[in-house]
Amino acid sequence: MRTYRNSFYQTASNYVLNLSRLLKLEFIMSATVFPEIPDVQKAVIFQRHNGELEYKDIEVPLPKSNELLINVKYSGVCHSDLHAWKGDWQSETKLPLVGGHEGAGVVVAMGENVRGWKIGDYAGIKWLNSCCLSCEQCELSNEPSCPEADISGYTRDGSFQQYATADAVQAARIPAGTNLAEISPVLCAGITVYKALKTAHLNAGNWVVISGACGGLGSMAIQYAKAMGLRIVGIDGGFEKERLFKELGGEIFIDYTKCKDIVREVISVTHGGAHGVINVSVSEVAIQASTEYCRANGTIILVGIPSGSKCISDVFNHVVKSIKIVGSSIGNRADTREALDFYLRGLIRPSIEVMGLSQLPEIFDRMEKGLIAGRCVVDTSR
Amino acid sequence: MRTYRNSFYQTASNYVLNLSRLLKLEFIMSATVFPEIPDVQKAVIFQRHNGELEYKDIEVPLPKSNELLINVKYSGVCHSDLHAWKGDWQSETKLPLVGGHEGAGVVVAMGENVRGWKIGDYAGIKWLNSCCLSCEQCELSNEPSCPEADISGYTRDGSFQQYATADAVQAARIPAGTNLAEISPVLCAGITVYKALKTAHLNAGNWVVISGACGGLGSMAIQYAKAMGLRIVGIDGGFEKERLFKELGGEIFIDYTKCKDIVREVISVTHGGAHGVINVSVSEVAIQASTEYCRANGTIILVGIPSGSKCISDVFNHVVKSIKIVGSSIGNRADTREALDFYLRGLIRPSIEVMGLSQLPEIFDRMEKGLIAGRCVVDTSR
Amino acid sequence: MRTYRNSFYQTASNYVLNLSRLLKLEFIMSATVFPEIPDVQKAVIFQRHNGELEYKDIEVPLPKSNELLINVKYSGVCHSDLHAWKGDWQSETKLPLVGGHEGAGVVVAMGENVRGWKIGDYAGIKWLNSCCLSCEQCELSNEPSCPEADISGYTRDGSFQQYATADAVQAARIPAGTNLAEISPVLCAGITVYKALKTAHLNAGNWVVISGACGGLGSMAIQYAKAMGLRIVGIDGGFEKERLFKELGGEIFIDYTKCKDIVREVISVTHGGAHGVINVSVSEVAIQASTEYCRANGTIILVGIPSGSKCISDVFNHVVKSIKIVGSSIGNRADTREALDFYLRGLIRPSIEVMGLSQLPEIFDRMEKGLIAGRCVVDTSR
Amino acid sequence: MRTYRNSFYQTASNYVLNLSRLLKLEFIMSATVFPEIPDVQKAVIFQRHNGELEYKDIEVPLPKSNELLINVKYSGVCHSDLHAWKGDWQSETKLPLVGGHEGAGVVVAMGENVRGWKIGDYAGIKWLNSCCLSCEQCELSNEPSCPEADISGYTRDGSFQQYATADAVQAARIPAGTNLAEISPVLCAGITVYKALKTAHLNAGNWVVISGACGGLGSMAIQYAKAMGLRIVGIDGGFEKERLFKELGGEIFIDYTKCKDIVREVISVTHGGAHGVINVSVSEVAIQASTEYCRANGTIILVGIPSGSKCISDVFNHVVKSIKIVGSSIGNRADTREALDFYLRGLIRPSIEVMGLSQLPEIFDRMEKGLIAGRCVVDTSR
Repeated sequence: MRTYRNSFYQTASNYVLNLSRLLKLEFIMSATVFPEIPDVQKAVIFQRHNGELEYKDIEVPLPKSNELLINVKYSGVCHSDLHAWKGDWQSETKLPLVGGHEGAGVVVAMGENVRGWKIGDYAGIKWLNSCCLSCEQCELSNEPSCPEADISGYTRDGSFQQYATADAVQAARIPAGTNLAEISPVLCAGITVYKALKTAHLNAGNWVVISGACGGLGSMAIQYAKAMGLRIVGIDGGFEKERLFKELGGEIFIDYTKCKDIVREVISVTHGGAHGVINVSVSEVAIQASTEYCRANGTIILVGIPSGSKCISDVFNHVVKSIKIVGSSIGNRADTREALDFYLRGLIRPSIEVMGLSQLPEIFDRMEKGLIAGRCVVDTSR
Repeated sequence: MRTYRNSFYQTASNYVLNLSRLLKLEFIMSATVFPEIPDVQKAVIFQRHNGELEYKDIEVPLPKSNELLINVKYSGVCHSDLHAWKGDWQSETKLPLVGGHEGAGVVVAMGENVRGWKIGDYAGIKWLNSCCLSCEQCELSNEPSCPEADISGYTRDGSFQQYATADAVQAARIPAGTNLAEISPVLCAGITVYKALKTAHLNAGNWVVISGACGGLGSMAIQYAKAMGLRIVGIDGGFEKERLFKELGGEIFIDYTKCKDIVREVISVTHGGAHGVINVSVSEVAIQASTEYCRANGTIILVGIPSGSKCISDVFNHVVKSIKIVGSSIGNRADTREALDFYLRGLIRPSIEVMGLSQLPEIFDRMEKGLIAGRCVVDTSR
Repeated sequence: MRTYRNSFYQTASNYVLNLSRLLKLEFIMSATVFPEIPDVQKAVIFQRHNGELEYKDIEVPLPKSNELLINVKYSGVCHSDLHAWKGDWQSETKLPLVGGHEGAGVVVAMGENVRGWKIGDYAGIKWLNSCCLSCEQCELSNEPSCPEADISGYTRDGSFQQYATADAVQAARIPAGTNLAEISPVLCAGITVYKALKTAHLNAGNWVVISGACGGLGSMAIQYAKAMGLRIVGIDGGFEKERLFKELGGEIFIDYTKCKDIVREVISVTHGGAHGVINVSVSEVAIQASTEYCRANGTIILVGIPSGSKCISDVFNHVVKSIKIVGSSIGNRADTREALDFYLRGLIRPSIEVMGLSQLPEIFDRMEKGLIAGRCVVDTSR
Repeated sequence: MRTYRNSFYQTASNYVLNLSRLLKLEFIMSATVFPEIPDVQKAVIFQRHNGELEYKDIEVPLPKSNELLINVKYSGVCHSDLHAWKGDWQSETKLPLVGGHEGAGVVVAMGENVRGWKIGDYAGIKWLNSCCLSCEQCELSNEPSCPEADISGYTRDGSFQQYATADAVQAARIPAGTNLAEISPVLCAGITVYKALKTAHLNAGNWVVISGACGGLGSMAIQYAKAMGLRIVGIDGGFEKERLFKELGGEIFIDYTKCKDIVREVISVTHGGAHGVINVSVSEVAIQASTEYCRANGTIILVGIPSGSKCISDVFNHVVKSIKIVGSSIGNRADTREALDFYLRGLIRPSIEVMGLSQLPEIFDRMEKGLIAGRCVVDTSR
């Protein structure tokens, strides 16, 4: 006869984990010895919003029983990282915080409950680090809406460090030999725009407008849209942007610095309005315009989140044209696999600029000034 | 060898039609003689927006080759009729205008190109009187979005007269023996809320909030939602409304005159927010609240159109919760058949009050003052 | 007071039409004179199934009030035309019959109820010549399932003649300047495979198998699938076919004359089975194989109809893999517009061989012997 | 500097688990003491297909780190249990095997990695005991199609024992106070028919035919269909079945022992054929008939699996009517929650007969003879 206690297994397990930490216990049960993992590592960390972005040594985290420990090689830098640092959004971040959620690296350790991974696999750290898998939203595959979603570089430390942990079920699977610097922005920017395009439920041959076509998100959206057989109208400003847009497969470019009536122009070139709109520009005015140039029964996707902004739609127009305005945040596990697959097939080429992790403050500065073309990626080794 | 002219057939046909009108020509080709159709009839007509609603004799219209001539017995009176008279909306009406778009009656004549109808059939006149059937929107079954949509009681004379014309393809088919007074409000209010509920793509067992639950549209929405297996939360004001709500099959009533925090209350009773919201109340504030109490990945339907109103949604909330805000106007031919079928199976009981057509000014007056429970229906014979 | 008769308008109109025919009446109401239309024309007609295919003079048909009279310039020759002549299918054809349902030509006359067309427009004659637009199936956009569907070259005379009639709502709209010989096979083969691909509800990046990849239907299916961003496996036999497959954008070719285990091969190259299968081959064995190499939750589309054949699926496999087997016949008005649009954008290049209408017997002969690569198109002028 | 080994955590954890088993180690860390769990328990086990069903003492299993140990109170007995014992299906079972996959009971212990459960919670054991959550099918919510799916009472021991283990993410959550005997058949039969009905994508008001309407699956299908607003035609044999059908909310009953032409009868009473068909009867002939009485563009769902049977569909009919034949096995996590919710709301009343676990051989005997009305449920305490 045995008497069980509620937390029996947990307690026993934690005991062993802590023991191992304290004693640096090493079981030698086979000849294979895995890479050495240091106790400390380089990271960029901040103590409070808008506070100093310190590049310094911090402790290497330990994976929980369901987690991978990933040696991050490269991490993309996203607008959301800037928002997290500045504390722009309504939801609270962890503090102090190591940001970053586009990390690509190599698995170096894993918890005892991990299935389907092995040391040496390439893995990606996404915005959605883990979720409960048991709530209504998770069950419906709406994992980003899980109330217990744990967010890399927001509610937990992210990829602006050399060693980061990630839930094994959510971590992105990356084939051996992949260019880790180039794939890193796909882990957030790529998945996000792919998900937005899927959410729009367009058919090949439909017109999609990408509002903010040539930034980090937009330039990937063009490529995904192209690979889906959509016809692409891009809205952005300047000749450089136009050149990039055409290079990536865009069909019609509207330069908002020159066009006097964007609504009329979109309706004209698409012969009746956009079937779908992807709003990645961070502009309330651009969102409102999209409600006007959207075709009857078309779909407007909101992706970019201008600080404190509202989506304002005329009810008469909204009802009579029967348009849909749909928010899209990030993807789930299936979206992740699919979005990476487009990259792996050579259909998506992120335009990246690699800098050192220690240069993150400079990158944020340029980002705020709108001086980044494509995506900055940090190399965590410097 | 024959030489054709473009408008040959049209010309010939019109010639015969006009001839028949001028001469009151009567072909006698079988023993059956159909009901006598008078030259003049009673109608309510107005010359300008907010102008006098004259109850007087006007000429009986002639059906075109694709049209039915329907002897309207009863017509529901809809809020849109009031808007049309007042000129509230951005799109222009015909003037002078005979309003009305919920007409139920009997086919008394038809054009030569009509198929599948016979004299004596019961028929309904809907908001969408005709559309082109050939444009992109018509082809996709989005007939209400046809740029050439002809609207009863708006862009053409409607059902506030004893004899009205309707395109034979769009006219609603009503079985013999149906209660024409009772079915008349189904022809707009019923179809509209049925379409709105379909557009929300809910599953049986989901929570739907009907905002403005006990007016003309809301009271039908409750019944359709019930018949679809949805769980219904109604928002409206007063004990009488609550009683009606429960009678019609609603589950939880929220009295906005008493509830201090509607957003919190909806989230609480639905255990996480509404899966769907049907906004039939004419209130900008109510629409905005619905964006807050909607569950993640839920769908908000806009139906009611408060004059000059905006739908305002916080972009952060919209994106992070991934909600959809969808405009829904009226139904197409399939929606019409389906919505009527629910009535014919006894699942929908419009709450009507029958008055004379001559009393229309009084009905409009009560409507503006919010004094109508359910739906007023006019009897065209008085 | 007027007394109407049921068939008044119809009678009057027919009276005028017949009058015009008898008297070759010519109204001169404007300066524009339209092309001369002859009384007789060349056609290929047969009196009974498998009977002589007579190339001879027959009367030019008169358009009804809702119809166009089209001067057919070119018509594709489809396998269904052969089936109609041979009487292979369960449903009965009109006899005597002028076959053909891929006719492309010019509008030369029209009935008085026609809207949105003008003399001189390019128009296409499709398999679905007309339907009632009022039944449940038509209302749901399933026009090919209308019980009153009238089929060109099957239940009514088709495009193997110089002048053919077509319902104006269903006739395909072709822009001025289009290559009428090349577009003709798009009117059936193109629409059919486009519809089949749509029905499979695949996402860009999914694997689609085209079984019978390089015949008239298959070679277009490759091109549509490519334009939709799908990854294409083709099954067919011979090096010539393989070369064509690769030219048109296919990714992996399986030669059934060489491959020992097609099921295993498909599962291997697609890493788990096809997400979708388009069965255009006319082979019961190929259909059965597709139920085995289809991925779990995948979709098998049946298009080709081997005479008297059965689709046989193991119930255990069907249930446990949760696969779908879906029949797809032809497209509706929206599918037509969309399928033509791909051609007009240069994404589809039908491989055609132009012969004279008088050579139809020879074409049928080669078709039966499997000796046609791509599509034969007849020029009605010779 | 630490050196990790691949299997470090797993090893340590197993070490502690085994230690606890050997020593019956009891940590006393709080005042709460949980129920005593015996070392041995009663179960029905068989060594080979068609072999003796032994009711005897076996060891109580230990939950893995991700598992619950559930004290099964009641378990429904399903036709699949009979198939598993007889070895009827193509896929192999574990041997020796404890069958059963409709177990309802109480959580008495859990692994250290379990989240969101506590001792004393009610939990259900389903057919799908666990899956990998990481493959393409799991990511797409098609969990029953996971290649690593572990099946209760098939590939692992099931609920015909007093203590069974279940993966915590897949185990069904049952509220405190629920009638565990009554809910047990919902865990397979209920979820299965609910999933089948969802897969048919019907709208409220559509006609659904349930072929085999009054057996264990069918009688639940009637109730779910009713709750979804569908109109139900049931096919089964005998007056008793008809009475039950009507009691449960069915509309039209067709007695196959009396009706001469089922195809014609279904088409007649549904005015054109079934929009959807749920095949739960275990009859190849019935499946074939359903392909004939299905309405154009309708959906036939295959659920029941007659041993070695084929689904045979005429290709001409399949294509021309554009019907869908779709396999549906069991539900995923979301389907489970939803299906249970209908029961918990009082909309589904399983008709059960409770017997002792020791009587399982008798139950299988009656099942084979077709002598069970509704569902037998075994009480594991006797």
